[in-house]
Amino acid sequence: MSLKTDPLQGLVAATFTPLAGDRTVDTAPIPAMVDRLVDDNVAGLYVLGSTGEGPSLTATERCTVAEAFVQSAAGRLPVIVQVGCESLSSARELAAHAQRIGADAVSAVSPVYFKPDCVETLVDSMAEIAAGAPNLPFYYYHIPAVTGVNCSMVDFLRLAADRIPTLRGIKFTSTNVFEFQSCLEFAGDRFQLLWGLDEMLLSGLGAGAQAAVGSTYNFAAPIYQRLLAAFAAGDLDEARRQQSLSQAIVRAFIPYGPRGAQKAIMSMIGHDCGPSRLPVATLTQSQRDALRNDLDAIGFFDAVGVDGLQAIGSTT
Amino acid sequence: MSLKTDPLQGLVAATFTPLAGDRTVDTAPIPAMVDRLVDDNVAGLYVLGSTGEGPSLTATERCTVAEAFVQSAAGRLPVIVQVGCESLSSARELAAHAQRIGADAVSAVSPVYFKPDCVETLVDSMAEIAAGAPNLPFYYYHIPAVTGVNCSMVDFLRLAADRIPTLRGIKFTSTNVFEFQSCLEFAGDRFQLLWGLDEMLLSGLGAGAQAAVGSTYNFAAPIYQRLLAAFAAGDLDEARRQQSLSQAIVRAFIPYGPRGAQKAIMSMIGHDCGPSRLPVATLTQSQRDALRNDLDAIGFFDAVGVDGLQAIGSTT
Amino acid sequence: MSLKTDPLQGLVAATFTPLAGDRTVDTAPIPAMVDRLVDDNVAGLYVLGSTGEGPSLTATERCTVAEAFVQSAAGRLPVIVQVGCESLSSARELAAHAQRIGADAVSAVSPVYFKPDCVETLVDSMAEIAAGAPNLPFYYYHIPAVTGVNCSMVDFLRLAADRIPTLRGIKFTSTNVFEFQSCLEFAGDRFQLLWGLDEMLLSGLGAGAQAAVGSTYNFAAPIYQRLLAAFAAGDLDEARRQQSLSQAIVRAFIPYGPRGAQKAIMSMIGHDCGPSRLPVATLTQSQRDALRNDLDAIGFFDAVGVDGLQAIGSTT
Amino acid sequence: MSLKTDPLQGLVAATFTPLAGDRTVDTAPIPAMVDRLVDDNVAGLYVLGSTGEGPSLTATERCTVAEAFVQSAAGRLPVIVQVGCESLSSARELAAHAQRIGADAVSAVSPVYFKPDCVETLVDSMAEIAAGAPNLPFYYYHIPAVTGVNCSMVDFLRLAADRIPTLRGIKFTSTNVFEFQSCLEFAGDRFQLLWGLDEMLLSGLGAGAQAAVGSTYNFAAPIYQRLLAAFAAGDLDEARRQQSLSQAIVRAFIPYGPRGAQKAIMSMIGHDCGPSRLPVATLTQSQRDALRNDLDAIGFFDAVGVDGLQAIGSTT
Repeated sequence: MSLKTDPLQGLVAATFTPLAGDRTVDTAPIPAMVDRLVDDNVAGLYVLGSTGEGPSLTATERCTVAEAFVQSAAGRLPVIVQVGCESLSSARELAAHAQRIGADAVSAVSPVYFKPDCVETLVDSMAEIAAGAPNLPFYYYHIPAVTGVNCSMVDFLRLAADRIPTLRGIKFTSTNVFEFQSCLEFAGDRFQLLWGLDEMLLSGLGAGAQAAVGSTYNFAAPIYQRLLAAFAAGDLDEARRQQSLSQAIVRAFIPYGPRGAQKAIMSMIGHDCGPSRLPVATLTQSQRDALRNDLDAIGFFDAVGVDGLQAIGSTT
Repeated sequence: MSLKTDPLQGLVAATFTPLAGDRTVDTAPIPAMVDRLVDDNVAGLYVLGSTGEGPSLTATERCTVAEAFVQSAAGRLPVIVQVGCESLSSARELAAHAQRIGADAVSAVSPVYFKPDCVETLVDSMAEIAAGAPNLPFYYYHIPAVTGVNCSMVDFLRLAADRIPTLRGIKFTSTNVFEFQSCLEFAGDRFQLLWGLDEMLLSGLGAGAQAAVGSTYNFAAPIYQRLLAAFAAGDLDEARRQQSLSQAIVRAFIPYGPRGAQKAIMSMIGHDCGPSRLPVATLTQSQRDALRNDLDAIGFFDAVGVDGLQAIGSTT
Repeated sequence: MSLKTDPLQGLVAATFTPLAGDRTVDTAPIPAMVDRLVDDNVAGLYVLGSTGEGPSLTATERCTVAEAFVQSAAGRLPVIVQVGCESLSSARELAAHAQRIGADAVSAVSPVYFKPDCVETLVDSMAEIAAGAPNLPFYYYHIPAVTGVNCSMVDFLRLAADRIPTLRGIKFTSTNVFEFQSCLEFAGDRFQLLWGLDEMLLSGLGAGAQAAVGSTYNFAAPIYQRLLAAFAAGDLDEARRQQSLSQAIVRAFIPYGPRGAQKAIMSMIGHDCGPSRLPVATLTQSQRDALRNDLDAIGFFDAVGVDGLQAIGSTT
Repeated sequence: MSLKTDPLQGLVAATFTPLAGDRTVDTAPIPAMVDRLVDDNVAGLYVLGSTGEGPSLTATERCTVAEAFVQSAAGRLPVIVQVGCESLSSARELAAHAQRIGADAVSAVSPVYFKPDCVETLVDSMAEIAAGAPNLPFYYYHIPAVTGVNCSMVDFLRLAADRIPTLRGIKFTSTNVFEFQSCLEFAGDRFQLLWGLDEMLLSGLGAGAQAAVGSTYNFAAPIYQRLLAAFAAGDLDEARRQQSLSQAIVRAFIPYGPRGAQKAIMSMIGHDCGPSRLPVATLTQSQRDALRNDLDAIGFFDAVGVDGLQAIGSTT
């Protein structure tokens, strides 16, 4: 498929970046992670976003990670590389690199230290990045709770439609379903809106989302696939039950720090992704044990078809 | 019905408070407003909340307005009176008054000048208010975007279950559908969660809401009744179309200031509610004309079965 | 003196409102409190502001408290009554009451539930309140960290100069000394800016403040009088030392909740003001004991000329 | 002087980074800029901070700019290089580079995309950066209005004193003078607090600041030198007049976007620094003309000893 013409359908995993014990990048676990996602019928990969700790890596490391995912995907599913940086010049170079290595699309978050003061400046800033990969579709990554950049996304689409020739859509990570549905209507077939809140996937679907990007799709895809199937079959009660299980998982890991905790969950299901980079905290062993018990108590391991005990030996 | 035992089902109108030209309270339009809502199959009235400008009225005025709505409802549909005040003592007096005049329930928003510093303090504060109406069900009014009070509502329910004997639920006005669904699960049959965002009603329903409180149900109930019917019939595409129309209406009036603009819409459908109290702005005549044209262009008047021209003479 | 013509010079105490054990208003301690402030050479009283828990009291209670302070002041020092309310109508009635009982000025904070959307609306809102006391000077109470209303105060003065005939100035409670000095320059002799941050009094003086309103002037006036004297004498090092002591006191009580803690300090110096109204927390006895020890350790009681032990018996 | 042992005294210029018309880095203007600052008796350079658009440059560009300033300074005044990055690894590399090229100190802002969740994490994050330049003094750059990271700086000093062996102090850019003075007291002679708000310099001095870092010291140093001299001589009225002039300048350029506007001012005084990098906006020619007139009207050019007309030809 080509993201230029074919819309994404289903779950897109916002992948983790595996780190070694010394917190250097370790690409070794990536092929098995990608194989698992293919087996889980995931529709695409979103690499080096918030989940992938993109902002915490050096430019060289980001290139290494992007290459590893593109190679592991091997055309089996599309790879979107998140290239946003405080420096638009650096972001543009990363976009050019993504195109060179055969990524399927690029995406970028706004700079946050210097925030665009209006939607026009945001569009101009994103245009500068997108121009680095003139042959790849571009998705703006909207995540106002993190960036503090909260322009109207309908206005963004309206303006960017003219100024960013490769614009393909928005990764929309906000609870504002009203704005999301308004964007979907404006977008029609021209642009695609990717829903970005796993714990509110049902809200996104209700509003008309066709695809969703998220971190929990790495380790809980079976739950969400059941949710999607139930929704497609018109069985909202079952969809809600699956969403409820997804929410129980999120409530379980949030107290441990959501980013570090999810890396711990990856190791529990057999994909050790190592620690997190500061300023994201890494769970201690006792926190990992507690989290495993919490997840076990809500039936997580059964729900995703994993033997929770298998990972005990794999923890650092 | 008794709100103590029977859950609300469907639309609850957050009523406007009619003011005369000099911005004093004018109860004369209330009976016709209530009759219309009964005709529109609205399930209840939520009086003196944000829409009803409760905080902008004196205690005496709030009593007058509450009485007028209770009398006009005349048992045909339940009346919830919002009694929240900066002074918990004043709020408690208003709660006692609501009980005396035969209201069906009371509800209260948190104080905002002095904000509760934790959920325990919030619960203690609400307990003080609820104690003023020991025979009436109590709903906490959660609207963090306005109050800045954003405790976990699951924690609130857990704590308040023991400390507020009359607790019946929460009017939940927040885009956080994750939290809403978590509350619904905790609540079971004991508490009821009232969904508070008209432009995201479909998200609330998807999460399991049975009832919703909102301002646009005053003038656009037919649209939402079609949305509810489509949702109940499993026709999500139609539900989404009705939601889309609702969103177009909201997008139309927001630029004029949502509170003042909605009062203007009331006069366009034949219920002149007069100006707003400062600091809420009142639309100028040219703004009202422009808004009417905007609404006409998106088919609002047809969608709610009103002849848009009828109201031309009724504007001040 | 008349506040209409004579600027305030020195310290204005933002008074506490004494409550009985059942949290009803208790005016009995007020005469002695006022006598002490007169003895401490305080230049005026600011009644029923944040320190005085004005927003937490009923309208009737606010009238009672205002009367008690006006009577106790007995012309020895001017009394400014804070009348701000969510309801501008209620605020206007309180302003009228303040004029009737012989207060020297009124002051008002902005409504916070419905926030003025621009400086024009803020000015119009304050004009409505000020009109209730046409013979009294009016001070706008600017405290953006609490209200979230953060219009430019220079713009406020410029607009309000024409629209509020009784405008006398601003109680400026914000760390933005840049804006404060800009206001002072715009104000000239026409308006007076009252500095509102005790722990940054030296910054206010440096910018040109002639008077300051604050809560710690109730129990630590001698420290600030020494600060003022040192500043006037050009001895900045000594002024800084006194400010440093003031800051140590503030750092000591903040962890206990600043509002409740300061009421506890009042009882330690012999003026039992009772508990606080919810949602402001009241210190437990063990917290009071700990706070007394903390204050003793930094030399508070010696610095203000009080025997710290005297109050042990007075705590509830 | 060595920043390890000698405290900075006076004004430290937060330098601009000159860009060519195509927005690539242009080091050519740097020597003359530094000569001017030496002539203006500036005490040090703070390179690649907010003013220097450090976050908007690539790592390579940051190295180029740091080298150019170190070479131009040539030991005449110390150079502090700001190396903060979203990636602590990148920041550490920049710190190591700064040490290699002979910079006098390094400084770093917190990551903002992933914010440290507590002061311990902030200290650990800064420790990682500082370790890249083990022979250079390290200053944490505190600017909460930009970063949203607002830990207690007293707590930071207390913790970092043990964990960051090279810690030398904090560049403190916040209006919280209370916290600043508290830090100064904790710091004693061990650490130095650099005041970071030009338009509130007098507040910083009153609290005890010995040195200040700011952008307007690049083009208005004479005003601030007069302010410092007046303060040292105990002439607070004169100090306040100079601060007032400084504030008038700031009020003049803020409406044009403070960062882009200050680059325009540099060209007006004969140091063309070119445009800004997005997302910082660059002034249009008509905006530059208007700003020059505004500055002329308040006497800026006279106050800094520059013929305002000389720069007319130098604008792009």
